Amino acid sequence: MKNFNYSIPTKVFFGKGQIEELGRSIKKYGSKVLIVYGGGSIKRNGIYDKIVSILKDRDIDFWELSGVEPNPRITTVEKGIKLCRHKNIDFVLAVGGGSSIDCAKVIAAGYYYEGKPWDVVVNPRNIEKVLPIGAVLTLAATGSEMDKFAVISNTETNQKIGTAHPNMAPKFSILDPEYTFSVPKSQTAAGTADIMSHTFESYFTNTKETYLQNRISEAILKTCIEYGIKAVNEPENYEARANLMWASSLAINGLISYGKPRKWAVHPMEHELSALYDITHGVGLAILTPYWMKYVLDENTVDNFVEYGVNVWGIDKNEDKLTIANEAIEKTKEYFVSLGLPITLREVGIGEDRLEEMAKKAVSEGKIGAIKALDEKDVLNIFKAAL
Amino acid sequence: MKNFNYSIPTKVFFGKGQIEELGRSIKKYGSKVLIVYGGGSIKRNGIYDKIVSILKDRDIDFWELSGVEPNPRITTVEKGIKLCRHKNIDFVLAVGGGSSIDCAKVIAAGYYYEGKPWDVVVNPRNIEKVLPIGAVLTLAATGSEMDKFAVISNTETNQKIGTAHPNMAPKFSILDPEYTFSVPKSQTAAGTADIMSHTFESYFTNTKETYLQNRISEAILKTCIEYGIKAVNEPENYEARANLMWASSLAINGLISYGKPRKWAVHPMEHELSALYDITHGVGLAILTPYWMKYVLDENTVDNFVEYGVNVWGIDKNEDKLTIANEAIEKTKEYFVSLGLPITLREVGIGEDRLEEMAKKAVSEGKIGAIKALDEKDVLNIFKAAL
Repeated sequence: MKNFNYSIPTKVFFGKGQIEELGRSIKKYGSKVLIVYGGGSIKRNGIYDKIVSILKDRDIDFWELSGVEPNPRITTVEKGIKLCRHKNIDFVLAVGGGSSIDCAKVIAAGYYYEGKPWDVVVNPRNIEKVLPIGAVLTLAATGSEMDKFAVISNTETNQKIGTAHPNMAPKFSILDPEYTFSVPKSQTAAGTADIMSHTFESYFTNTKETYLQNRISEAILKTCIEYGIKAVNEPENYEARANLMWASSLAINGLISYGKPRKWAVHPMEHELSALYDITHGVGLAILTPYWMKYVLDENTVDNFVEYGVNVWGIDKNEDKLTIANEAIEKTKEYFVSLGLPITLREVGIGEDRLEEMAKKAVSEGKIGAIKALDEKDVLNIFKAAL
Repeated sequence: MKNFNYSIPTKVFFGKGQIEELGRSIKKYGSKVLIVYGGGSIKRNGIYDKIVSILKDRDIDFWELSGVEPNPRITTVEKGIKLCRHKNIDFVLAVGGGSSIDCAKVIAAGYYYEGKPWDVVVNPRNIEKVLPIGAVLTLAATGSEMDKFAVISNTETNQKIGTAHPNMAPKFSILDPEYTFSVPKSQTAAGTADIMSHTFESYFTNTKETYLQNRISEAILKTCIEYGIKAVNEPENYEARANLMWASSLAINGLISYGKPRKWAVHPMEHELSALYDITHGVGLAILTPYWMKYVLDENTVDNFVEYGVNVWGIDKNEDKLTIANEAIEKTKEYFVSLGLPITLREVGIGEDRLEEMAKKAVSEGKIGAIKALDEKDVLNIFKAAL
């Protein structure tokens, strides 16, 4: 186990009706709020009205930035920063999934930065102060509600880049599983794949003897497998939504990655897909994951996949190692299929033409991946296999 | 899953050499420190000298309260409070296991309370302000390094009572697994039993569909089973000490109890044993646990024990339910035996004479236990079975 510094300061109000904590929680930090959200879904399902009524009751002034894209753009961040400066905003409230929260985070960080907002995405060292942030979660997927990370796209440069700062972690997040009842099947499926992918990125490493972290990772994976399909088939199953929602936060808040290196593989590959083709992040992850697994499986990594197959999928441990490993990968793929997710790039409109360009960009800062370091050629091979 | 409010604010510096973070971390809160510790072990193994040299280097003034008992007494807390007031202490640093940390917590809480310090133990509502606390952990067991709880004994009234306040959670804790290399086999074993018992108290409840929490509980239990015995047999096995140490914190910091009721059974029973006979807490827990399990096993609870047997002990799920349950309980007992722990009350000098008195006290505030509510008669039956 490697040394680590644990700090997960976000408070979480989890469960039915926890929105009632919103007013008091904001008041600890400010009274002039920017609400950041995406499309109109929060207006259709009543969450918007509820929030507005709470803010009014508490005499909290608010302004709005709506229309945050599924892959939030730096131009939208820029709009938010302008609004914050113009109105002397002192608190940023994201309402939505990872897109809205990530956008809110970079608005809050960019507010204090004098240069171009894209600079704080490209280089987190430009971040010093950050406006306080809160989140009302409406989609279980990215875990942004409880971590310090944000991913922003730049359509001018065709880049999609992650940034991070401890102060970008929300001060509080409200997680009401009922708020995800209206999430469509396809988004529920993509969110489940996203949670699983976060877990895989931490689970499949070469660090020895992070036994506890690996068992907790398996706990999260089993939860996704148990409840992802239930949430897809029964959108208003509270326990399914609750377990998935809490899994989304725990998969990436640090819990399972402490004591391990943080060198992800599938996420940087996928970021290139969605930067160029604007596909749903979780869909891209679901497509790439099984091909990535197959590609990195070899005699050095087979034990990791055996551990995965036996502990997560309940495969007989007495079978041949390679058989277990391949069966585990096959089961992963089958599970994504059962969720209704695509399994090839072509299905989401990605052809052969720009694979090389994306492979090159994916490793622009060096090899990627913890269990097996991947270079440009490796990434291209995985892309081609996933066609 | 029940609603919950998650807040785990303690920062943890985990790993070799993390003591170097001590000076900077204290300086954020104060510069006049009371060091609270137990016997002389931290002087023998060099931890004391290291801490003193760091404090001196940073120009941090310090005073000492040594001799904290394994079951820390209110009289020792009172001494600490006097010293803090006399010297205008602004930070309390516990060095040791749960005893020293619990003692430090109640010193820090009692400092601001004008009445008798015992009042803040008996009634946590008397706690408002708390001096900032830090911990350097030298024993993996109680989890006090990352939670808000403290247990203090009163030898005048023969009481051992738990208290809690959010501000009693340490601001930071330093967890260096090497600091536990010199923990004797018997203490390592008792600590492992304590971690497992914390997990059992949260794991065995009737709350439906806390799937994720249950799987994480199993992750912690498997870690204890894997590494408790290794740490007993190979005291300087870093990975064993590291996994146990991190398990001790995660077992009780809230992670596995969020979304469940907090109604413990074995701990309140054991507190009566150690209040009256001053035995090691973890030893008392190890003795009582299998008898408690047998006592609460019935047709309503058998599924919980099947889950435990199959997922933690790998028992064949196709066996008869009751067979699995009983085998799981037997394996639990056998594991404690393998650690060298006693399995009867007589072995630790507890006879029949005061069982009734202890049973009565254990339920003085009502029935105890989440999976099956136990009254005085139930507790007495368990005590008798454990004789």
